Amino acid sequence: MMKTAVNADIAATLAALGSRTVLQVFLVACGGSLSIMHPGKYFLDRHSRRITSDVYNGDEFVCRDPLTLDAHSIVILCSQTGTTRETVRAAQHAKAKGATVIGMTLDPASPLAEAADHVLQYQASYTTGVAIDAADSNYGVLYMLLAGLVNIADGTDYLPSLLKSLGHLQPAIDKAHIRYADLFTTFAERFKDRLVIYTTASGANYGAAYSFAICVLMEMQWINSQAIHANEFFHGPFEVVDENACFITMIGLDETRRLEERTRDFLYRFGDKNNILVLDAADLDLDGIDPQFQGYLVPLIFFDALWKFAYKLADLRDQTMLEARRYMKKISDY
Amino acid sequence: MMKTAVNADIAATLAALGSRTVLQVFLVACGGSLSIMHPGKYFLDRHSRRITSDVYNGDEFVCRDPLTLDAHSIVILCSQTGTTRETVRAAQHAKAKGATVIGMTLDPASPLAEAADHVLQYQASYTTGVAIDAADSNYGVLYMLLAGLVNIADGTDYLPSLLKSLGHLQPAIDKAHIRYADLFTTFAERFKDRLVIYTTASGANYGAAYSFAICVLMEMQWINSQAIHANEFFHGPFEVVDENACFITMIGLDETRRLEERTRDFLYRFGDKNNILVLDAADLDLDGIDPQFQGYLVPLIFFDALWKFAYKLADLRDQTMLEARRYMKKISDY
Repeated sequence: MMKTAVNADIAATLAALGSRTVLQVFLVACGGSLSIMHPGKYFLDRHSRRITSDVYNGDEFVCRDPLTLDAHSIVILCSQTGTTRETVRAAQHAKAKGATVIGMTLDPASPLAEAADHVLQYQASYTTGVAIDAADSNYGVLYMLLAGLVNIADGTDYLPSLLKSLGHLQPAIDKAHIRYADLFTTFAERFKDRLVIYTTASGANYGAAYSFAICVLMEMQWINSQAIHANEFFHGPFEVVDENACFITMIGLDETRRLEERTRDFLYRFGDKNNILVLDAADLDLDGIDPQFQGYLVPLIFFDALWKFAYKLADLRDQTMLEARRYMKKISDY
Repeated sequence: MMKTAVNADIAATLAALGSRTVLQVFLVACGGSLSIMHPGKYFLDRHSRRITSDVYNGDEFVCRDPLTLDAHSIVILCSQTGTTRETVRAAQHAKAKGATVIGMTLDPASPLAEAADHVLQYQASYTTGVAIDAADSNYGVLYMLLAGLVNIADGTDYLPSLLKSLGHLQPAIDKAHIRYADLFTTFAERFKDRLVIYTTASGANYGAAYSFAICVLMEMQWINSQAIHANEFFHGPFEVVDENACFITMIGLDETRRLEERTRDFLYRFGDKNNILVLDAADLDLDGIDPQFQGYLVPLIFFDALWKFAYKLADLRDQTMLEARRYMKKISDY
């Protein structure tokens, strides 16, 4: 269970960067892989006085071509298969600009890996069908890399605490599945025929809310969805709330928790509690996870847990099975 | 029509900053005012080699409290009334950190103005009921300020070209209203009973798509909506497209135009053209606007034009009139 060192490829990457001045990081990907970059930036914002960072969709990054992108930049990209065309092009673009390119992928022989200076392999249980340790997931690998970069840039070493925390992540996820099982059964029944289901979150959780909305609800279930930032909610979106509005509301443990609590309170007051699925990390058993990293690991727990919810939802909807798509990987010429 | 100098309060602010090293800009606001910060960052990304910038919701900014925020930072905030609580708190937070605080608002006597070191007043026609020159709108003022900051940081002066272009903006908007009148009448009829209407855009247009989705469709019409980034669209959201799906698709003139064209092409192919309202800036008369600023001014034109669409839509929906709200400014204790 104890994780005492970063993965070998991360260690090698950090060693190669050790002599560099790390000041600017671009976090670039598409869709679900982009979603992990938001908590990555949150971590950098909270822990580095020297590193500035940006999060971009892969194709936006190539076209926008920020003037600050140069040989001093570090560009971190992620694609599960390593074949996402926009992300591969973004890696090639960054390389052409002289930047140091780090590619995260399941497949170290993929085009993304080929385009990168450094390749970090991660694991995903749902593609391999094999149970993994969540420490080796995309989130886990990204956090280890960023903690290493903060150590290089700022001289503050969060890695020992992060590694200890990652070592206790998978048991926390396993316990969350048990904790949420009945809740998800209840809400799958309530949500199965809904046309619109929103997600809300802030801070480190925003990416998980975004990914569940676009990759699970929209992509795999063809349900209209949107990830609404928990405070932006009050500046327009909340006007759609009535007794029929459906929300999945995340409440985490980072510094923005009060934003997420405020959203829940509003939804409970003006919506119908039967339509508001609240995931509150205060209910989770996070034994062994350092309080300073709980806020960062909660979105992994929420997202992993919500996969089970998605399967329950799909089982009840005969319209489509989970992972049914009309366009993605069915039509290639768009 | 010619605009030969920046507004006096912008000039004074730039003069006060003239001796400063401008390297980091935070763009902070909520909802509709936040939406203008996205093209602001796009402009900085494209035109400054030295300035890094971040866009944050006001409350997220306060809680996240980025470590890089310090006495060297410039924090630009915006609130129409200057009373948005989260934005005022964000200004106070930035000031407490020693940052230079610039507040944009309609009301120079508002709490935001009081919390700021420098106050930039802008104009909005829909609040005053008086016709304004769009050069003095929130977008116009922000662009002038940012061009001034780029001049300080990089020594490149885009202001003369920007001023010339802003001087030709209002006529371009007036012509767009004529251009789109019939199209909007047709689509208001088609969209009036729809439950979900998405917007899509990328680059400098993303903020306008975001604002129309959350402040107009969701807030004022209680229609489910989402601003989908034109490339993120292909990484999940596009699976909801069928012959009934409704979209408002923006196609601008900045470097990301091909992303927006690709989205339109997909929607036309797999959706029903009668449900896809396309605004293509290539159809607009932008006489006098420098090509290098067309991409930045197009979202103002689209957004201003779409207000007319919103009124037409509201006229056809007896469920709610434009500017009807259930919660905003009706209930104060949330």
